[in-house]
Amino acid sequence: MTAAEKDARKLELTERAMELIAQRGAAIGKADLVAATHISRARIDEIFPEETDLFDAIVESWFSHDIAVMEEVVASALPIQRKFHEFFARRFLRERERYREDPALFALYCELGAANFESVRGYIDLADHYLSELIAQAQEEGFFPDLTINRALTLINQMVVCYTSPQMMLMIDERLAEDKLARIIDTIFAGLSGKDRGAASITGLRAVE
Amino acid sequence: MTAAEKDARKLELTERAMELIAQRGAAIGKADLVAATHISRARIDEIFPEETDLFDAIVESWFSHDIAVMEEVVASALPIQRKFHEFFARRFLRERERYREDPALFALYCELGAANFESVRGYIDLADHYLSELIAQAQEEGFFPDLTINRALTLINQMVVCYTSPQMMLMIDERLAEDKLARIIDTIFAGLSGKDRGAASITGLRAVE
Repeated sequence: MTAAEKDARKLELTERAMELIAQRGAAIGKADLVAATHISRARIDEIFPEETDLFDAIVESWFSHDIAVMEEVVASALPIQRKFHEFFARRFLRERERYREDPALFALYCELGAANFESVRGYIDLADHYLSELIAQAQEEGFFPDLTINRALTLINQMVVCYTSPQMMLMIDERLAEDKLARIIDTIFAGLSGKDRGAASITGLRAVE
Repeated sequence: MTAAEKDARKLELTERAMELIAQRGAAIGKADLVAATHISRARIDEIFPEETDLFDAIVESWFSHDIAVMEEVVASALPIQRKFHEFFARRFLRERERYREDPALFALYCELGAANFESVRGYIDLADHYLSELIAQAQEEGFFPDLTINRALTLINQMVVCYTSPQMMLMIDERLAEDKLARIIDTIFAGLSGKDRGAASITGLRAVE
């Protein structure tokens, strides 16, 4: 096989594996793929030397839309507030589409992702990387003062977690809406800073009365 | 039994049931309580007529600290930003204590709560009720303009969900910190409003380039 043939075959087998996951409602290994496709084990091994290679390919396919969105938004010429919103909203809307299409399958992918977190971590790190770029741009324009990029990153990630966490989608899908996300992004741009402005107690937490 | 005796007995049996849950790592029913305490089924039935009465008593015990915190904070004379912070921070710190004491037991309670959501819902509604009171107070002072109480409630709940959701605790405990929560509360007070201030697109979501 040429490299291009191998890539095409890999894509095809990954799609086939994802169809099988959807049909069976369970994780799929290389042996299942051999049984379902009647392709020889040796040929499957050529494409996916290890079990984790098959799973990694599935995860790559799952996140391919997210990555395209993030690259496009970061490279766009939108105002920075709009970039932030698109960065989260587009992925959220696509994720919700997937969830509503088949909630049980979505839940299964969440489980598989949690059980194989090492395969997923790279994509979460990549999202943090792109968001850090956007934060740096925003800070150049004077937003999020008195915060390191990492500190702003963790605070923003926590404030928008309802729109990025598949587990939150499973729990409160019906409460999530794009216009709420827009108000949250606006709140972050208007209010996020590293300054202590009155929420924390000077004298410690248990200072009631 | 007098009503007071019955209350005391109920409390004692509820505590015993929670000890059994911790020991066994599994849900406990009335039959388990009979077997473990050697108290007669008839006597147990007097205290907990239905299985759900036992579970409800366990849930009540679980949430008793939260309710005390919320009542105390709402009735306090703290500045409104401080009230918001205490409202969330105290419950978060107590929850984290419980989680770190026994992560597996904490996860079991999460599961039991999810499986018996009807017993839990009242407490979530009560938290929303108290938070709505705080929001009304804040709005009297000019915060959160152009938002109904309900709209502010849902936005605030979403922005602080990392500090209220036991599922988030299970997932990202090590990323949660009281000082981050304080910065989120400050951000909400400085920035939350109902006005569209640039995050949402005028021309629809897919408006990049």
